[in-house]
Amino acid sequence: MKVKLGEKNCLYPMPTTLVGTLVNGKPNYVTISHVGIMDSTSVSLRMNKSHYTNQGIKEHKTFSVNIPSTKMIKETDHCGLVSGKSEDKTAIFKTFYGTLETAPMIEQCAINMECQLIKTVNFPNHDIFIGRIVETYCDKNVQTKGAVDFGKVQPILFVMNDRSYWKIGSRIGKAWDIGKTNHTKP
Amino acid sequence: MKVKLGEKNCLYPMPTTLVGTLVNGKPNYVTISHVGIMDSTSVSLRMNKSHYTNQGIKEHKTFSVNIPSTKMIKETDHCGLVSGKSEDKTAIFKTFYGTLETAPMIEQCAINMECQLIKTVNFPNHDIFIGRIVETYCDKNVQTKGAVDFGKVQPILFVMNDRSYWKIGSRIGKAWDIGKTNHTKP
Repeated sequence: MKVKLGEKNCLYPMPTTLVGTLVNGKPNYVTISHVGIMDSTSVSLRMNKSHYTNQGIKEHKTFSVNIPSTKMIKETDHCGLVSGKSEDKTAIFKTFYGTLETAPMIEQCAINMECQLIKTVNFPNHDIFIGRIVETYCDKNVQTKGAVDFGKVQPILFVMNDRSYWKIGSRIGKAWDIGKTNHTKP
Repeated sequence: MKVKLGEKNCLYPMPTTLVGTLVNGKPNYVTISHVGIMDSTSVSLRMNKSHYTNQGIKEHKTFSVNIPSTKMIKETDHCGLVSGKSEDKTAIFKTFYGTLETAPMIEQCAINMECQLIKTVNFPNHDIFIGRIVETYCDKNVQTKGAVDFGKVQPILFVMNDRSYWKIGSRIGKAWDIGKTNHTKP
């Protein structure tokens, strides 16, 4: 039986990310799980206009998207609880920089995407920042046969509906392949 | 050790969706995993301009986002392999309509979001359609204590890097909570 939930976003789970910016001359990291894929080399971030991070993105037109692992769940959640306005989060992680020089990245995260801001879409309470990925950094030990293996990355998945974090499970099939075999019709 | 991957999107895993539209008077469903959350009631779809579906979205300014379960993996992959131009996909699922009347939804999917197009962002090869959710429908049996339980939904997660589908794993923590306890510093 179907029930109506109203205007409820159920596009979950989403990968939990740590977004890195340079704000007032210091690296800052905030937890963002409302993200999106725009095209092969572009991502979007939904950022409440109140975030400290937005200042850094607007000033430098750069940011990083870092994928923390389940081992970093406490640090990751902490960065979503405390604003850079009231806490210097620099010491929580080891920072490195890439070619853009103003997009701090987290050494402990297995994946880091260094982004150049290309568009901002204005929503009533949010800035949607769209960034083009200029370089992606990956820990060699999360690769399998040259591809990033998310079973090794062990990302933290976010669900808003019950405000919870989840693990990834097992690989269940090949895309553009498993549907070639007969499927059942209702 | 960090290795450089170039301009590589690693924002995964993403929920696999079936996007419903009315094209040439018939319901059509296509598999889309390059999606995003814009704000609490808005989602984005990255659609290659070649998709049959884009015609329907442009004509009616409506679409649906349906969340298939792992049990529907073959049907879901099939809808990404075959275009509505060459196959009538109407018979694969049982269709129902909501208040918008032009956004067909899939009865077999536990979650259905009925969307009104509010903005289109133009990328070189893609249309990014941004839709406001006007109503969300949910199977009563995937709720736990009134919230959608993704352990019961069993969504299909997509990773482009190895072109594969994954299951969701277990719930590992409460958001805006687990980070309140002491985290380790490097």
